Amino acid sequence: MKRNAKQISLPFLQVSKALSEPLYIQIYNGIRQAILQGKLKANDQLPPSRMIATDFGISRNVVTMAYEQLLLEGYLIGKTGAGTFVSGTIPGFIKNNEIPGIKKEVRTHLKRFAWHFTALLEQHMLPRNVETEEVTPFQTSIPSLQDFPFHLWMKSVQESTRYLNVKQLGYQHAQGSAALREVIAGYLRVNRAVNCTADYIIITNGTQQSLWLIAHLLLDRGDYYGIEDPGYLGARAAFSTLGAQPVPVPVTRAGIDVAYLEKKVKSVRLLYITPSHQYPLGGTLPVSQRIALLEWARKKETWIVEDDYDSELRYEGKPMPSLQGLDPYGNVIYLGTFSKLLFPSLRIAYLVVARRDMVEKFVTAKALFDRQNSFIDQISLADFMDKGHLNRHLQRMRILYKKRQDELAEIINQWAYPFLKVHHSDSGMHLVGWLAAHLDDRQVSVRLQQHGITATALSEYVLQHRQPPALLLGYTAYSRKQMQTAVQKMAQLLANNKWG
Amino acid sequence: MKRNAKQISLPFLQVSKALSEPLYIQIYNGIRQAILQGKLKANDQLPPSRMIATDFGISRNVVTMAYEQLLLEGYLIGKTGAGTFVSGTIPGFIKNNEIPGIKKEVRTHLKRFAWHFTALLEQHMLPRNVETEEVTPFQTSIPSLQDFPFHLWMKSVQESTRYLNVKQLGYQHAQGSAALREVIAGYLRVNRAVNCTADYIIITNGTQQSLWLIAHLLLDRGDYYGIEDPGYLGARAAFSTLGAQPVPVPVTRAGIDVAYLEKKVKSVRLLYITPSHQYPLGGTLPVSQRIALLEWARKKETWIVEDDYDSELRYEGKPMPSLQGLDPYGNVIYLGTFSKLLFPSLRIAYLVVARRDMVEKFVTAKALFDRQNSFIDQISLADFMDKGHLNRHLQRMRILYKKRQDELAEIINQWAYPFLKVHHSDSGMHLVGWLAAHLDDRQVSVRLQQHGITATALSEYVLQHRQPPALLLGYTAYSRKQMQTAVQKMAQLLANNKWG
Repeated sequence: MKRNAKQISLPFLQVSKALSEPLYIQIYNGIRQAILQGKLKANDQLPPSRMIATDFGISRNVVTMAYEQLLLEGYLIGKTGAGTFVSGTIPGFIKNNEIPGIKKEVRTHLKRFAWHFTALLEQHMLPRNVETEEVTPFQTSIPSLQDFPFHLWMKSVQESTRYLNVKQLGYQHAQGSAALREVIAGYLRVNRAVNCTADYIIITNGTQQSLWLIAHLLLDRGDYYGIEDPGYLGARAAFSTLGAQPVPVPVTRAGIDVAYLEKKVKSVRLLYITPSHQYPLGGTLPVSQRIALLEWARKKETWIVEDDYDSELRYEGKPMPSLQGLDPYGNVIYLGTFSKLLFPSLRIAYLVVARRDMVEKFVTAKALFDRQNSFIDQISLADFMDKGHLNRHLQRMRILYKKRQDELAEIINQWAYPFLKVHHSDSGMHLVGWLAAHLDDRQVSVRLQQHGITATALSEYVLQHRQPPALLLGYTAYSRKQMQTAVQKMAQLLANNKWG
Repeated sequence: MKRNAKQISLPFLQVSKALSEPLYIQIYNGIRQAILQGKLKANDQLPPSRMIATDFGISRNVVTMAYEQLLLEGYLIGKTGAGTFVSGTIPGFIKNNEIPGIKKEVRTHLKRFAWHFTALLEQHMLPRNVETEEVTPFQTSIPSLQDFPFHLWMKSVQESTRYLNVKQLGYQHAQGSAALREVIAGYLRVNRAVNCTADYIIITNGTQQSLWLIAHLLLDRGDYYGIEDPGYLGARAAFSTLGAQPVPVPVTRAGIDVAYLEKKVKSVRLLYITPSHQYPLGGTLPVSQRIALLEWARKKETWIVEDDYDSELRYEGKPMPSLQGLDPYGNVIYLGTFSKLLFPSLRIAYLVVARRDMVEKFVTAKALFDRQNSFIDQISLADFMDKGHLNRHLQRMRILYKKRQDELAEIINQWAYPFLKVHHSDSGMHLVGWLAAHLDDRQVSVRLQQHGITATALSEYVLQHRQPPALLLGYTAYSRKQMQTAVQKMAQLLANNKWG
């Protein structure tokens, strides 16, 4: 066949059987890039497939496959009886022989983000809540991961999936695995005196998602919510990023100040609290205060969000039963999590609501957010709890954590007193280390971080009601030796009085 | 010891060693309930622990433990030298001898929900998007779960966790596992010509979460977004529930109508499209249209959300490369998922963004939403892909699904023509079955559901640009026999012409 005048050869095309890519993809890519780079222009005619086959000593079929794909994608058009041409509708798109790629100079156009949300997001989310968390003293709220019986967990993964119905690989109900909700309901009734059945439990992808659901369903932009001051930053981030306004309520040694609430707080849509173990100061709300709180919520028609994040970790006496179990009015939304009891990267938490219409709303919102939780994790956890592993692990961890708390207190008293003062706590995962009154705890915290010691400043959790300077000192994940090294370093830095 | 006049006995208390509950908990519960039920009144004095011990023939220590817990929780108060009393601050809280529990008559107070969000939620979320999805003909978008090599998946779960660093059980980076992002980046470059590295990928808990992130970060309440009409309901739900307004753009047989977009659509913040395989009509946007679209987006400063949900499932020719890979301006946000390739209840999807500042915003928002994805699932998937199982499974499924599509078309042509007309499709998971023009496809769909046949009406996906009546017929998860039975039933119902 004689070459047509307009018909071009393909000098740029390189085809080799030595490459791992199939030949037809080599041809497809070569022609496609030539078009995008302007080496082939609109309406250029391509050589017949037979000629390319002969040129490269390959099967014609290979070339036809490449052409067909390019026709399909619209790079080429076939004209009956005339041959194959580069499409006329592709402009000289890519200049300077550049392979398509993101131009480096693309300007940042912030105005194209949702300004309200992104501004609040930046304000409320700290980098440490996004990044991998270092497990170094005295990072708080980390269970002792070395002591987690991972082999038992893997056994539950195996056993729960052994007789899996393949349908369970498909979309499951957004409320979460019924088997898991059943064991959680049993666990909550016995351990936390929560008044619930499986029907009122909604499985979430962590407490942060529970809070995010609550934020959307219960708070409109501009609404007020009550929160302990100092209080949990994750709750503030969820509620405030949606545009609700915090009303800080001070805390006493026995948790949220209910008298203040009754006298000073007019009306909030919801109140977020940690009654069994106030975060971060550690108080436990006594039952008389709980009852007063429930009456206040009834009168005010206020939702109470009870975050019961670590109440199982009580070292003396029985854990204080939940607030939810005392509430006859259905105003309490109860939050629980397995991040502190098992391991954080599992991502299973739950909320308990009091009425059927609330269940429906929360489940529908959960489906909108991410359809459902990972299924295998859920049935594995159900098996793990059903076999009693959770309770046994908890019992071991209570003993270990109490020992570690005692060790930390002893080490601090020996090495860091009077620069740092701690009080014994009957529960939880951290101690509050009080600093000399003239120090700025944030400055101290930053300086300690420079020396590899993580100790969050109490004032980071404060909104309005100032506290004396203090550091949060997690102890659950660290050996005596790790803690001693860190305390000695800390004592040295504090003694040098660089902040005085 | 002589009983004090005010001192009461505890006739209601029942303690038995035969019960599985520890004795101290039996005593604790008995006294607690008596206080809450009003059987013990404020300031009542309790008998000394020794007396109870003697009465029940148990150790005094057991009684002391129960008293201490009740003191701790505030039910009792100890007065030095005087004894133990019921707290004066607990009002007669529970009437009628009722155990605390949710009163059934609690009124529904809808006004206490966030009205804007809940109203839109109800409007946009269908019950079927919340419930367990039945895997029956012709439910769409379900992979053949029987054919998923679950034993290989479990092997990857085992192997990826064998040498797990325990730190990985703690909080990991919100962007997702680096190992998983690496293999996804490799997969996308080779299979989808996506222009990316692992740094620009964000792991999410399913495409629904990807859309939910986009909604928050890119759309303000009242903003306009463009969407294919007919188009994917999950995207409309995510964007509209946050209060943004859809601008419906018609689709042709080759995907979204770019000419219409250029002429008729003034300004939208973002445009959601499925260019490789339009959902639900199945068109593939040719490259000339893709380039025009990218130029339009650049001029208008509009984000394009490319949902590439099933483009790997192409049965003829190479899959059309992604739109993202052609975009030199960084306006395309690419969405991918493993729900269609592996199994839906896994809950792993991802998005690819073009700039570092966007990565930061998306990752921060992901951390706010739910901190991170389940970690074990992520490393298991990385192992599974790394070993080539995903690609091999895909190749098998392409063959199986093509066969099933052919079977469905053949069965319909044999049994249901001319009541139902289908055209061959070169990709995807469903066929569009066109009905006689006078029928109402929603009515047909409802009636079929009454006979156990799931076939969603095309008009459910329509916002404004009406389509002829049709049903979506998924075929990927069903045997020839299942499909034949369902088609015969369907043909019978259609022939009976109950909707004529």
